[in-house]
Amino acid sequence: MESKLVNNLSDAIRAAGLKDGMTVSFHHHLRNGDFILNLVMDEIANLGIRDLTVNASSLFDIHMPLMDHIRNGVVSKLLTDYVSGGIGRYISNGILSTPVEFRSHGTRATDIACGRTPIDVAFIAAPAADCRGNCTGKLGRAACGSMGYAIPDAMYAKKVIVLTDELMPYPLADWAISENFVDYVVKVDEIGDPKGILSGTTRITRDPVGLVMADMAAKVIQASGLLKDGFSFQTGAGGATLAAAASLKKIMLEQQIAGSFALGGITGYLVEMLRSGCFRQLMDVQCFDLDAVKSIREDPRHREIAAAHYAGPGTRGAVVDSLDVVILGATEVDTDFNVNVHTDSSGCLMGGSGGHTDAAAGAKLTMIIAPLVRARLPIVTDRVGCISTPGSSIDVLVTQRGIAVNPGRADLAHALRAAGLPVVDIQELKQKAESITGIPQPVAKGDKVVAHVLGRDSAIQDTVLSLPQE
Amino acid sequence: MESKLVNNLSDAIRAAGLKDGMTVSFHHHLRNGDFILNLVMDEIANLGIRDLTVNASSLFDIHMPLMDHIRNGVVSKLLTDYVSGGIGRYISNGILSTPVEFRSHGTRATDIACGRTPIDVAFIAAPAADCRGNCTGKLGRAACGSMGYAIPDAMYAKKVIVLTDELMPYPLADWAISENFVDYVVKVDEIGDPKGILSGTTRITRDPVGLVMADMAAKVIQASGLLKDGFSFQTGAGGATLAAAASLKKIMLEQQIAGSFALGGITGYLVEMLRSGCFRQLMDVQCFDLDAVKSIREDPRHREIAAAHYAGPGTRGAVVDSLDVVILGATEVDTDFNVNVHTDSSGCLMGGSGGHTDAAAGAKLTMIIAPLVRARLPIVTDRVGCISTPGSSIDVLVTQRGIAVNPGRADLAHALRAAGLPVVDIQELKQKAESITGIPQPVAKGDKVVAHVLGRDSAIQDTVLSLPQE
Repeated sequence: MESKLVNNLSDAIRAAGLKDGMTVSFHHHLRNGDFILNLVMDEIANLGIRDLTVNASSLFDIHMPLMDHIRNGVVSKLLTDYVSGGIGRYISNGILSTPVEFRSHGTRATDIACGRTPIDVAFIAAPAADCRGNCTGKLGRAACGSMGYAIPDAMYAKKVIVLTDELMPYPLADWAISENFVDYVVKVDEIGDPKGILSGTTRITRDPVGLVMADMAAKVIQASGLLKDGFSFQTGAGGATLAAAASLKKIMLEQQIAGSFALGGITGYLVEMLRSGCFRQLMDVQCFDLDAVKSIREDPRHREIAAAHYAGPGTRGAVVDSLDVVILGATEVDTDFNVNVHTDSSGCLMGGSGGHTDAAAGAKLTMIIAPLVRARLPIVTDRVGCISTPGSSIDVLVTQRGIAVNPGRADLAHALRAAGLPVVDIQELKQKAESITGIPQPVAKGDKVVAHVLGRDSAIQDTVLSLPQE
Repeated sequence: MESKLVNNLSDAIRAAGLKDGMTVSFHHHLRNGDFILNLVMDEIANLGIRDLTVNASSLFDIHMPLMDHIRNGVVSKLLTDYVSGGIGRYISNGILSTPVEFRSHGTRATDIACGRTPIDVAFIAAPAADCRGNCTGKLGRAACGSMGYAIPDAMYAKKVIVLTDELMPYPLADWAISENFVDYVVKVDEIGDPKGILSGTTRITRDPVGLVMADMAAKVIQASGLLKDGFSFQTGAGGATLAAAASLKKIMLEQQIAGSFALGGITGYLVEMLRSGCFRQLMDVQCFDLDAVKSIREDPRHREIAAAHYAGPGTRGAVVDSLDVVILGATEVDTDFNVNVHTDSSGCLMGGSGGHTDAAAGAKLTMIIAPLVRARLPIVTDRVGCISTPGSSIDVLVTQRGIAVNPGRADLAHALRAAGLPVVDIQELKQKAESITGIPQPVAKGDKVVAHVLGRDSAIQDTVLSLPQE
């Protein structure tokens, strides 16, 4: 058998023909445990290649060495869907001369597929692979479960290099990416640190405010009329949203509601709902914990989906378009229901849409859960520091002090009031918060554009300015 | 949920924007039970659309109405990998003004993917689908198992229409093609006739000549040194090749040889070998019988693969490139080991490469099994009527009267002789046959080029002339 194994990463990069000014890509299923991006960028720097665009589905603090590669000219442009706080601070301080392009996970997939953001060399961190490049996240010491975000990179990049620390006998049966998309395979010592890749278990919040919001969220879903046979659901891994899922599960089991699917990043909690019969199926683009990894490996009802299938915008659509309810977070919501998940209260980048904008656009009921006050600042503002997800996609904001419904959803407001839920005007929520915190000072901003946030149509939706110079 | 269901096929064709001169595509998993190609072409004709190119992975006698659409100008060009005898006769009689382009299954996939043969509208016959286009061949009354050949069409066509007679609740979990590739879904009464789609069971030959060849074939494999742990294997559904697989199974079980995978079109016989531990895995691009369909639906070791993964030529390669042994058939073999599977002894088209050329190019040992004499004509000739698979890809010809080894494989000839097998010169086989049949008359040919047979590099490898005019 002709193996695609090359001796080392350096040989693979050379064989792939990487040159100055090209674009390389990375996926983020190894999250804050990922060793691959740093390993690759160091090797690229050693080879003297410069002026690269890095298209990374997300960046975490473990990727901080990337900042050095920006400083020394190896990297000149970033495309990403999410940045952690540490990385965000550097970007907000203007480390790049070109604005970062932020996309949603779905828009990233579509823009790669349609050639708007071509990739020259994709680097795929694979927890298990065979010598011809069939690879999976379901096996191996650094198993991450789904590899959904890496699939567009593999399908459309000009060259594809798989890096693995677990070589399996050919053919690896349960591939996420098949060999016909792979040019080279490189064996490395360790692709990542399992502790940084997955939580041991995801936990429901014990915070009383979180529990109040969770209970209210479940009641909103119930009152919306969507909680019936065929119900579909997406939520994140945050403690309060998990608590909302717990409340939902209780209602679904009591009322014997047979949902259809849960979607998105998958936690053990959603796996438990699958097993309890709340859903027929899990559609998984990313596993958040060990239970989810075990489930996607063993349970055929738990399916891996590609980023485009999950959330790609466009006429053919994606699973998000068939979603009933999504529960999402926010750092700020404004009185037009625009949501910020990119910047913190000081205007510093510390997040990104991920699938936020996609799920919000698709779901019949998009709910933001957030405490009325966070870090002594109101959650509701006149204008968010950055429009991550437009207010037109948001139906309802649930806080512990009341529920604000988008004026475009009078039907929903009516249903919630009929169910005895505390519907209030969003202005009222803002005033309540300000009565606690006072009116916050306007955020001082620098004058350099450090990021463009692109909407699902790939057009610029908002712009992030640098932090003020100290 | 926004459904992609359209009222009827006519609306779907119009919505897809099909116009004169465009290309439509079809896949052949429903084989001689397929109703879809005729249904679609009739509707296209009704709509007055003309001058189309039809790219069909294979054509069967059930598709004979296509000849009318050629006559009346609806269809002006054909691309295919295989034609049955009835269709072949029309083509050989010169029904088309442009030569048919024959490719292998792998080359078809690659040429679609790289844009060499773009598809405007792909029509996918799906035994089960949901209203958003997720679809599978594993379920439904016309279940065909794998849909591997349809995957390039779905991935790369400008518009994709799924036709099904079995609408499933959304989301259909075990999709072969996912909704993000599908534009429209059409519900039809019946996509096909199960009796024409699958054999009930595939059977081992009882013909004594076939059994002698099968036994010899198994001994050749054993003597080749390839039959050891990790062994991989492809064969067709013919009675003699199945008998060879039976002999092989016996040896593998006796000697406790743990193979890796069997590949290609899958029969119940290969499923039985999987279950017996002869292989770890089946890689299935097309199911030939009911047992194979049941197995691909239920056994995670039995995996559906896309046509490109199966056999796509190119630098990234495909599973065929890792194949140890393939057993293939032939209508003729010449003294340079070139194989014809396109035309019969009178020069009339009645077949095509399918995966023949791909598997032959990839396998370490490519074996042709054929009886020395067929229909009172020698199997070995000076020059085959059509080079379907070049002799450089063929290692050995097994007949009931001796084994001819390609002169380029002196190592193999040596190994076979050492094992006491009757290795003879291919000229000697030819003479033996001619001593029985006499020297056949040269085949009379017409002067019109009716087909180009393309090699795995997409260049013209051979040309088929029309039958002589009567």
